[in-house]
Amino acid sequence: MKKVAGAEQSHPLFRQVYELVLNRMERGEWKAHDKLPSIRLLAEEIKVHRLTVFKAYRRLTEDGKVYVKDKSGYYVSAESVCYEDVEEGAVVSSYLLSNSLSDIQRNPVKYQFSQALIDPNLLPNLYLSDYVKKVFDLYPKVMGTYSTVQGDDELRESLSRHFREHHRLQLSAEELLITSGAQQAINLIAKIMLGPMDTVLVERPTFGVAMDIFRLEGARLIPVNITPSGYDLDEVEALMAKHKPRMFYMNPTHHNPTGYTVPAWQRKLLVELAERYRCLLVEDDPFRDIYFGKKPPLPFFAYDTEGWVIYISSFSKYVAPGLRICAVACRFPFMERLITAKSLADNGTPLLNQKIFLHYYTSPRLQQHLGKLRIALQVHKEIMEEELLMAGWEWTAPKGGLNLWVKLPDQLSAEALFRKSIEHSISFVPGEICDPLGELKSWIRLSYSFANEVLLREGMQRLTALARTL
Amino acid sequence: MKKVAGAEQSHPLFRQVYELVLNRMERGEWKAHDKLPSIRLLAEEIKVHRLTVFKAYRRLTEDGKVYVKDKSGYYVSAESVCYEDVEEGAVVSSYLLSNSLSDIQRNPVKYQFSQALIDPNLLPNLYLSDYVKKVFDLYPKVMGTYSTVQGDDELRESLSRHFREHHRLQLSAEELLITSGAQQAINLIAKIMLGPMDTVLVERPTFGVAMDIFRLEGARLIPVNITPSGYDLDEVEALMAKHKPRMFYMNPTHHNPTGYTVPAWQRKLLVELAERYRCLLVEDDPFRDIYFGKKPPLPFFAYDTEGWVIYISSFSKYVAPGLRICAVACRFPFMERLITAKSLADNGTPLLNQKIFLHYYTSPRLQQHLGKLRIALQVHKEIMEEELLMAGWEWTAPKGGLNLWVKLPDQLSAEALFRKSIEHSISFVPGEICDPLGELKSWIRLSYSFANEVLLREGMQRLTALARTL
Repeated sequence: MKKVAGAEQSHPLFRQVYELVLNRMERGEWKAHDKLPSIRLLAEEIKVHRLTVFKAYRRLTEDGKVYVKDKSGYYVSAESVCYEDVEEGAVVSSYLLSNSLSDIQRNPVKYQFSQALIDPNLLPNLYLSDYVKKVFDLYPKVMGTYSTVQGDDELRESLSRHFREHHRLQLSAEELLITSGAQQAINLIAKIMLGPMDTVLVERPTFGVAMDIFRLEGARLIPVNITPSGYDLDEVEALMAKHKPRMFYMNPTHHNPTGYTVPAWQRKLLVELAERYRCLLVEDDPFRDIYFGKKPPLPFFAYDTEGWVIYISSFSKYVAPGLRICAVACRFPFMERLITAKSLADNGTPLLNQKIFLHYYTSPRLQQHLGKLRIALQVHKEIMEEELLMAGWEWTAPKGGLNLWVKLPDQLSAEALFRKSIEHSISFVPGEICDPLGELKSWIRLSYSFANEVLLREGMQRLTALARTL
Repeated sequence: MKKVAGAEQSHPLFRQVYELVLNRMERGEWKAHDKLPSIRLLAEEIKVHRLTVFKAYRRLTEDGKVYVKDKSGYYVSAESVCYEDVEEGAVVSSYLLSNSLSDIQRNPVKYQFSQALIDPNLLPNLYLSDYVKKVFDLYPKVMGTYSTVQGDDELRESLSRHFREHHRLQLSAEELLITSGAQQAINLIAKIMLGPMDTVLVERPTFGVAMDIFRLEGARLIPVNITPSGYDLDEVEALMAKHKPRMFYMNPTHHNPTGYTVPAWQRKLLVELAERYRCLLVEDDPFRDIYFGKKPPLPFFAYDTEGWVIYISSFSKYVAPGLRICAVACRFPFMERLITAKSLADNGTPLLNQKIFLHYYTSPRLQQHLGKLRIALQVHKEIMEEELLMAGWEWTAPKGGLNLWVKLPDQLSAEALFRKSIEHSISFVPGEICDPLGELKSWIRLSYSFANEVLLREGMQRLTALARTL
């Protein structure tokens, strides 16, 4: 059969250029009465024929999105820009194909407070290196063999026992998937759960990369405030009822970036809300074992009987982050779909990494290491807090995790401080990056886990001194 | 600010529903004169307000994509469906969220002819295990350290030298990205290149998982026949002119599943076509070093001066597949976007795996190992061919790779043979899975690389005997 008349307008290329221009206008990249790039320039940028751009511009003009002025070019119509009401919770944010957090962290600085990573000197490197040699004796063909897509059976068996004993999670090995780091886990979950226009609840503030991942799937983000006392459950219920979100991405234990922990009583109630509103809770839990004082409450997953929680446990962070091992716990049917997504993403995490991790994780050395690590990190935290106190900055002391969430003095903008700091080889994360609304411009995240004690004190003194000059 | 008048039609929600309906019609999910789902049903399915669906349907009606009949509902206009002629190559295929190839390979069988993997006994396991211990002496903190997103600098430097010397590829380390296996590379490329309705040229037959990945991004697949003498370039040019594909996914050297190799003269011409039609060539090249006789022609990438080839080199397959190391070569601006996609996917391949690979790859042992491996695989291939010859099945002897592409005798269906074989613990890949059109029902792919010589002979004798009973 032949193409029918009128098919031109449904031509994929034509339509995509049309959409692309409209998108950029709606996201505010091109504002009302801005001049659009010339046909030649846009055609080169997006690698399509000029005629295609011409057709798209012409149709945009016909549709009133764009107007032509004095034959000098195409301009954005006021009507084509869409303003959203922030009070209603829906958020449109520009997804620039750049990853702001990793851009910041790429700056090589002397005083590194932007990385929520642990100083490699605090990790059991030497012990692990010796240990690895045993792995090759036990599994001589480990480098010639693929893992199963879901992850090594022995590792999943061992982790399901660990979760049962330590976190009271009723889990079988079949309910665990091994991924290459928590970020991959978030990515796979987003892939199976989200499509364009789906809504996702996210904490405000939250992990910036997670927002990027959700937006890339076309989802809309709805913020849920997190405070030292947890969430406002009435607010959460109202948002669930109104927006029918597909999921709530949360980091409820020693939360990134704030360090806050959601109390046990809220966990139980929230799982009930999740069931009632059929909203999946995605519980990202990388800081559980880094507590100063008593253990945090059980994971949400422990309260869930109906399968509405997916649990991401990326314990490798404080053992061997370079191995990139993470476990995702969830029930059927989510697990089946996650395995398919993992299969297409990379066909399984390398077996070697899983076997190395397994052997250290089940050794008695792990608990010894964790005990020492907690003390070291608490010392780090206290150094940072001493300097903050002297500077008169405000924060809520966290009970665990790797970060302080700090309110800058009035009239001091995080952006101005950041620009100045980078010149002096100090980096941190401006609060804006953690905010689904792109505000929180007088907050910053300071990580105390990466720099050593000397650099920590020195860098904090320099940072607070810099702030006084602004 | 308040919403401005006229913004309704450019509202993202409205437009996305409009697009979604159009997409489903164009893909043939909803065919000409089908009744569309009711406004209520669609609103529930995609979780938007009914009014939004109503507006989208109304606009679709105005645009002639949809018509209203007797007030009973909305129907698909004949004009809005884009019929493609199968003879001309366009294919509409539903993406079922299941991964047929990995399902087949998951069957534990004695005679494993479905895995295009190398028998772990043919890999340098022991030597590598010893070697790994040196890695820890050189990089004692390797497990505590993340790699950069793009991949370890030392590995990329070393690989760019290797590619320059061995394959005459002019490449800098900045033009290489390390991924966790070729499958991840294909996935990342699909993510940055493809959107709904984009067209992709794929060989017929081709790698089934790649088709799954492209379909998951919503792309339409257009088959290009591959024969022992390569492509029909007139056919390729006609398809490029007609469908304006975003890319051509190809495996031109010891092709999977057929083993065919595209000749050098076609490589040069095809790169010119790619430039002319602005169609990216995605060259997947995992079998380059497995040749029996003389070396294959240079990669397409070597002929490309304008940046229209992305080269996927997954050499880890015949060294240490368990490490999952793959290199992707491409030019700016694709590289920049690939790094962003990799950053969101998993934030970088584990450093340990990269360092292990680096040290073996640059050692003189690699070429020795490859020399031995080629001989061993050629012996495997010849055993399989002897049995095929006796059975009177047809195939074209490949000059390299891991597979034979076999035409079954008339009246024997691959599906019937497959069902019977699995009962007798023999597995292979039915041709249908490799076919973008889902046909080729009397072809099968037999991998000779995984089973050892004894099992290979025994399994082939049993398979051909089984076929005679059908």
